[in-house]
Amino acid sequence: MEDRFVVQPIGWVESPLTDRADAPKQGDEGAPDAWLVFEPAVADGLRDLRVGTDVIVLTWLHLADREVLVVHPRGDAARPETGVFSTRSPDRPNPIGLHRVAVVAVDGDRIRVRDLEAVDGTPVVDVKPVLQLDDR
Amino acid sequence: MEDRFVVQPIGWVESPLTDRADAPKQGDEGAPDAWLVFEPAVADGLRDLRVGTDVIVLTWLHLADREVLVVHPRGDAARPETGVFSTRSPDRPNPIGLHRVAVVAVDGDRIRVRDLEAVDGTPVVDVKPVLQLDDR
Repeated sequence: MEDRFVVQPIGWVESPLTDRADAPKQGDEGAPDAWLVFEPAVADGLRDLRVGTDVIVLTWLHLADREVLVVHPRGDAARPETGVFSTRSPDRPNPIGLHRVAVVAVDGDRIRVRDLEAVDGTPVVDVKPVLQLDDR
Repeated sequence: MEDRFVVQPIGWVESPLTDRADAPKQGDEGAPDAWLVFEPAVADGLRDLRVGTDVIVLTWLHLADREVLVVHPRGDAARPETGVFSTRSPDRPNPIGLHRVAVVAVDGDRIRVRDLEAVDGTPVVDVKPVLQLDDR
């Protein structure tokens, strides 16, 4: 059984957020709009993304500490330590960020999204439509 | 800028589904319950997972074709070709599966979940709690 896999970014976040310490914990907590700038090689995969829809963006949180298994939620030392798989901490063994965002503009290989808490330069690894199953 | 990242599975799917051709397209279309069998090394990260909650499981869809950018949705040739980032096709550049499932049992490093459409042996790469943001 193969036991490691290579993620290759399909694009990058272009955002006014440049410092992880300044980034909101979640997109609905004051995160700015951001551009997702895609590699030309994946352009065919983008062709049906539409303004006004919500999408799920997966990122690779490249500044994360992958050795962390237990955290104080939201970095608050007053909250009891919690296993990372019960938190959205970026620090975790495979630091994949999950962001539900609205598409507000499409400009060729650049997609503008609302309220993204990932910092400038964060690799984008996938985009998926929202299904009813995700909302139940 | 680093441009590739290594995913290391934190566990594996143990399921009666053994053939991709037999797998439902989505978990709410008749998928069976499955065990997620985690590596002992990540056990601390699991300690707050509870029966009766919904979680988001991310998998690595290891049987996928990563060169695919356009598909007929749900493999139906009658449906027009669509960019993969507007579909949930497993065939995509970074074949990360996103599964919202209910936890129905916890047995040490094994977590049983309802309605998982991933085949036996699929690597598990992350588990996250569901946030209100995901449901908006």
